[in-house]
Amino acid sequence: MSERFPAGELERFIAHVMTAEGLPGADAADVARLMVAADRTGFDAHGIFRLPDYLKRIRSGGINRTPKIGILRETASVALVDGDNGMGHLAVEYAVRTAIAKASETGIGWAGTRNGNHAGAASVYAAMPLAHGMIGIYGAVGGGNQMPPWGGTDLLLSTNPLAVAIPAGDGTPVVMDFATTVASMGKIRATAQRGEAMPEGWMVARDGAPLTDPARASEGLLLPMGGYKGYALALVIGLLAGTLNGAAMGEDLLDYAADVDRAANTGQFICALDPAAFGDAGAIGQAVDRVAGQMRGSEIMPGFDTVRVPGDGRAARLADREENGVPIPDALRATLDGIARETGVAPLSNR
Amino acid sequence: MSERFPAGELERFIAHVMTAEGLPGADAADVARLMVAADRTGFDAHGIFRLPDYLKRIRSGGINRTPKIGILRETASVALVDGDNGMGHLAVEYAVRTAIAKASETGIGWAGTRNGNHAGAASVYAAMPLAHGMIGIYGAVGGGNQMPPWGGTDLLLSTNPLAVAIPAGDGTPVVMDFATTVASMGKIRATAQRGEAMPEGWMVARDGAPLTDPARASEGLLLPMGGYKGYALALVIGLLAGTLNGAAMGEDLLDYAADVDRAANTGQFICALDPAAFGDAGAIGQAVDRVAGQMRGSEIMPGFDTVRVPGDGRAARLADREENGVPIPDALRATLDGIARETGVAPLSNR
Repeated sequence: MSERFPAGELERFIAHVMTAEGLPGADAADVARLMVAADRTGFDAHGIFRLPDYLKRIRSGGINRTPKIGILRETASVALVDGDNGMGHLAVEYAVRTAIAKASETGIGWAGTRNGNHAGAASVYAAMPLAHGMIGIYGAVGGGNQMPPWGGTDLLLSTNPLAVAIPAGDGTPVVMDFATTVASMGKIRATAQRGEAMPEGWMVARDGAPLTDPARASEGLLLPMGGYKGYALALVIGLLAGTLNGAAMGEDLLDYAADVDRAANTGQFICALDPAAFGDAGAIGQAVDRVAGQMRGSEIMPGFDTVRVPGDGRAARLADREENGVPIPDALRATLDGIARETGVAPLSNR
Repeated sequence: MSERFPAGELERFIAHVMTAEGLPGADAADVARLMVAADRTGFDAHGIFRLPDYLKRIRSGGINRTPKIGILRETASVALVDGDNGMGHLAVEYAVRTAIAKASETGIGWAGTRNGNHAGAASVYAAMPLAHGMIGIYGAVGGGNQMPPWGGTDLLLSTNPLAVAIPAGDGTPVVMDFATTVASMGKIRATAQRGEAMPEGWMVARDGAPLTDPARASEGLLLPMGGYKGYALALVIGLLAGTLNGAAMGEDLLDYAADVDRAANTGQFICALDPAAFGDAGAIGQAVDRVAGQMRGSEIMPGFDTVRVPGDGRAARLADREENGVPIPDALRATLDGIARETGVAPLSNR
């Protein structure tokens, strides 16, 4: 069971909790807004759901409450941002703003982060350039190694997500956001909670045999989307988001949920690309609308209800949640009520 | 059966044929070098194998023999290149050089092409920035719609490949290159020639049922790698390589192999990113070596022989072919001998 709360109320709650935990007020408000941006668009595993994990990390000294985020190196179109081990959302938003500013000058901007932390939903950041009429391309090193290289059994890769947002004309922007593993650990935990088996293809055991019992997930290896192609993509995203920035990747990567008192050195990258560099941005947006409309207008395959363009589901969830609020499952609400008691912050309320 | 020929001999042959067909000598030599770059690295379906298709298109008036390739629009870090309907290799190499030059100035360069044509293997272009110590990211709209959007049956998407090349230190560079479909039409044709069935997952019929008989491939729909994620990736690559550049995508895309007398308006993009913008390029290369070495050093899963990093196979094929020549199957050699007779060019020779 769940109850819905206005997104603004979730922001109020998170900002007050973060302030109570010692974050400066402006940073606390920014973190709250960026976390709830995931809840607003339906990425429920990356929004307020993460608050307990973040608090554990902040309280254990694994996150710097008062970071000085800034640019370590830059060229006309590229920047390397130091997150100073603050909340990851702050460093990534700083990087996105930097990339957009550079793209406004030169047509494209690329910013990488080091000394960052988990920053929530990839599409939150990929979609930020949309407000400036720009394309966003975002990649990140995920929060722990749960996947081996193709053909191996050593856990050396994370779910390294990729997100791309492309402005449309009158229509819904195209927003792609996926993990490069077939399933995320969050999805597997949810399957376990429902008492269901995992489909074959999500995980294998170390001997390569399919592993379908989610209670045995800790013994298992996540599989990459699309087999060896997904392995290649996860590795390349990790090199661009981690290694290139001097951030953790491979054996350096800690288990974000468990190893909470050390700096994670999470890395991300964001690229902003301005369609106006290619021609009339309005005409390009209309061309995107046309192609997207062709996809949506396709004949439907038996067994499917509709053909969607990436971003359509996000737009529908956004509209629903702006109107009706964000559903908070009862178990999460109980956890949040506990945090309210611990911090002296007023609990989530619908009044 | 096949016989091996030095890569330089393949280049000699293609350059002479292209000159005989009316391409200026310098363009013919460039096309030959870029086609054979695919053969040198083992992308056999994208090198000299394509010569008959290109000749059909040139002779039918579908390709401009004497294009004036140039920049239509540019900013400090972005360019839109007009291929003037010449051989696609020429426009894409022009775009790569433009992107590298811009990256040398600003840290990153992005160039898109319009009015181009099929340009061969994606990794040939993604790997060009490596010689300048730079990362290359390449995407293209494939040569014909063979895949529906996820949940649909209308053929609106091509195999839209993505390639990324990342410089290493002392080790082999990381070079990823894949189609966003599970299998390419070339792979399916090769399966048919061997009289084998396709594995489930390559194609479905219009009713969604698995299609495994390669002789029925023309009735079938290619499936995306990784299900809906691969659909999203194919669409996004098509928008960035096609729509953004004013090139063909979706319903506009013609069947490159069949519709040979009209301009294809093929689009591609290349991004060059300079690691030196992020720090000491040598140290970053060594960090790439370390991560790649961790992958190669993983324990092996039962059923596998080795763990490879994307680009390892390419490097091994390159070394073998530089030493021993490029294998040319007898059937292809007979076709090339026919072209030699038609054009008055000396046939491939080992002497």
